[in-house]
Amino acid sequence: MAQQHLDPRNSTAVAADALAGYLRTQATEFLRALRTHRETGGGAASGAEESSDAALALRRSARRISGTLHTFRPLLDADWSESLRPELAWLSGTLGREHAYAARLDRLVAALNRLSGATAALPSQAGAPMAGRTAGAERAGPPGPGGTGTRAPATPDRGNLTIGAAKAGALLDRQLTLARTRAHSAALQALGSSRFHAVADSVAVLASEVPLTPTAPALDLRPLAAAAHDRLRDAVAGLPLLTAGHPYNAEALIHGLSPDTAPHPQDAPWHQVRLLLRLHRYALEVLHPQAVPVDVRLLAAGEALNRHRDASEAASAAAAAARTPRIAPATAYALGVLHADQRHEVEAARFAFQQSWQKEAVSTS
Amino acid sequence: MAQQHLDPRNSTAVAADALAGYLRTQATEFLRALRTHRETGGGAASGAEESSDAALALRRSARRISGTLHTFRPLLDADWSESLRPELAWLSGTLGREHAYAARLDRLVAALNRLSGATAALPSQAGAPMAGRTAGAERAGPPGPGGTGTRAPATPDRGNLTIGAAKAGALLDRQLTLARTRAHSAALQALGSSRFHAVADSVAVLASEVPLTPTAPALDLRPLAAAAHDRLRDAVAGLPLLTAGHPYNAEALIHGLSPDTAPHPQDAPWHQVRLLLRLHRYALEVLHPQAVPVDVRLLAAGEALNRHRDASEAASAAAAAARTPRIAPATAYALGVLHADQRHEVEAARFAFQQSWQKEAVSTS
Repeated sequence: MAQQHLDPRNSTAVAADALAGYLRTQATEFLRALRTHRETGGGAASGAEESSDAALALRRSARRISGTLHTFRPLLDADWSESLRPELAWLSGTLGREHAYAARLDRLVAALNRLSGATAALPSQAGAPMAGRTAGAERAGPPGPGGTGTRAPATPDRGNLTIGAAKAGALLDRQLTLARTRAHSAALQALGSSRFHAVADSVAVLASEVPLTPTAPALDLRPLAAAAHDRLRDAVAGLPLLTAGHPYNAEALIHGLSPDTAPHPQDAPWHQVRLLLRLHRYALEVLHPQAVPVDVRLLAAGEALNRHRDASEAASAAAAAARTPRIAPATAYALGVLHADQRHEVEAARFAFQQSWQKEAVSTS
Repeated sequence: MAQQHLDPRNSTAVAADALAGYLRTQATEFLRALRTHRETGGGAASGAEESSDAALALRRSARRISGTLHTFRPLLDADWSESLRPELAWLSGTLGREHAYAARLDRLVAALNRLSGATAALPSQAGAPMAGRTAGAERAGPPGPGGTGTRAPATPDRGNLTIGAAKAGALLDRQLTLARTRAHSAALQALGSSRFHAVADSVAVLASEVPLTPTAPALDLRPLAAAAHDRLRDAVAGLPLLTAGHPYNAEALIHGLSPDTAPHPQDAPWHQVRLLLRLHRYALEVLHPQAVPVDVRLLAAGEALNRHRDASEAASAAAAAARTPRIAPATAYALGVLHADQRHEVEAARFAFQQSWQKEAVSTS
């Protein structure tokens, strides 16, 4: 049922107008977010939250424009679209880093608390890292006394932690807060650069006039959207879903102590599917300008891949922190436990993806 | 189907003769194993393997006699049985320790190799810790060059390990080999003690004459065996099986960094079920002297609980090693990863138990 909406072949012909309309809408959103960001002072003063929301909105539109240029390339002026895409990717990457570091610290601090048996779920992390993990009623032991109080999101609650866990939390706090501050400065600098002004100018033009090719008005968008869907399906077919569907397969930690410090090569195909799923989603948005039919299973698959990415990067951050010179053995031990815990989150996310994807496959057959 | 054999209520009346016969058989096995152990010199010289097998056989019989005295208590002379049971438990515990330390080291070294991506499975560990974990065909990466060579079982293969993993392996090797050597000496000392000679004398009497109560010949064994089965079922009903059946529930590691160094309290009910499952099995052996009907699901449940116990103790050994003074941070980090890995093995074992137990429950309804 729901899956039928997902295959762009099943809708009626969609003209290039829809593409132009979608791009204009996203360009308008981009310009509005940019205005809000400037009005709130780039997060320097009291408007920090609004400014951060505006940065998210900027990225949201930039990703959609970039993805749409990619999927519907044959309908768009090639030179223009090929020059704009990398600039949008640069912008989106630069703007995303601050938020990513903050979320990573939150995730790791929540995990340290959980691993210390300190608290069931902290207010700021409720839902995110623990979601769907346990039947709450059966959870062993009451939440710790420090668990229900309010606290600054990035400050570890050390009341119930061992010295090692507390030191590991403090080390991660230092390292990721520094990275976050640098990312914030880099984003502000980027938004003031001439490179950014050129991107903003291109998007401003896009808001009024989309550079379609002369043949575009005669073309149907559906085959191109279907091709994006096929790329996603093919990439999923290349994933080790049989292993992923076998709980506790211990694959994600198989190189947990490998001398290689590079990101796990086994994660890359999953990250790739995450990007292709996003492109597929944007293509559906183009085809259904009013509202994309809701598919909870596609949402679940996307959430699982986000969790996969977040846990993978959090595990790397824990491993990187453990390579800090002159740390105490207890700190290193806690970081080792934390690393392994996040790699198991990676495995859990793959299992969740496999489960949701399997449901989709069954519903189409 | 198979479950019907498991419920002792479903067989025909079994007389006390069967109990006496079973105890005589086990006592004879005990004495034979003791003779073999003495002939092979207690593991001091070339007969180490035979001696170790004999020690296992001794324990095997001691456990069965002890369990049977417990389950069928009302049919046996109370004073005699109450005085013999703790002595058999002491003997079985003393004899088991050496083997347990050796198996623990094997398990931890295999895990360190797996976590280093060094090898798929070492010859000496093939099957045990990795069994049922992955579809081999999908396994990422080829086995490392050191994986297929022969090696002494307890010496880590350090070819592919990081310094931290290699040092962690060496530390565990030192600590567990020392513990094992001490356990070996303690076992030899126990077998030469007057306390042991008293046990052996009691078992020798048992081999010829089982001290039944005057009313025993008129009694049916089945209600007592059924009571053992009920105790097992009740204990299983108290386990958090709903959580355990939810893969990646992250329960087993919830106190992974807790300041409490005592064994995980959450493991205790599972260890208890493991003991009750064994008592149930021995009761079935009494009722079916020819051959207990094979039930693969009961076997699977028992194996899962053994794996649970082994992983739980291995995780504790890794945590204990991390508290060694003056270790390098890299060593502590590797031990942290190892600890978390074994706690996930604990969780995986609970999941496996839940799966096999659920099948049994379905088949009886």
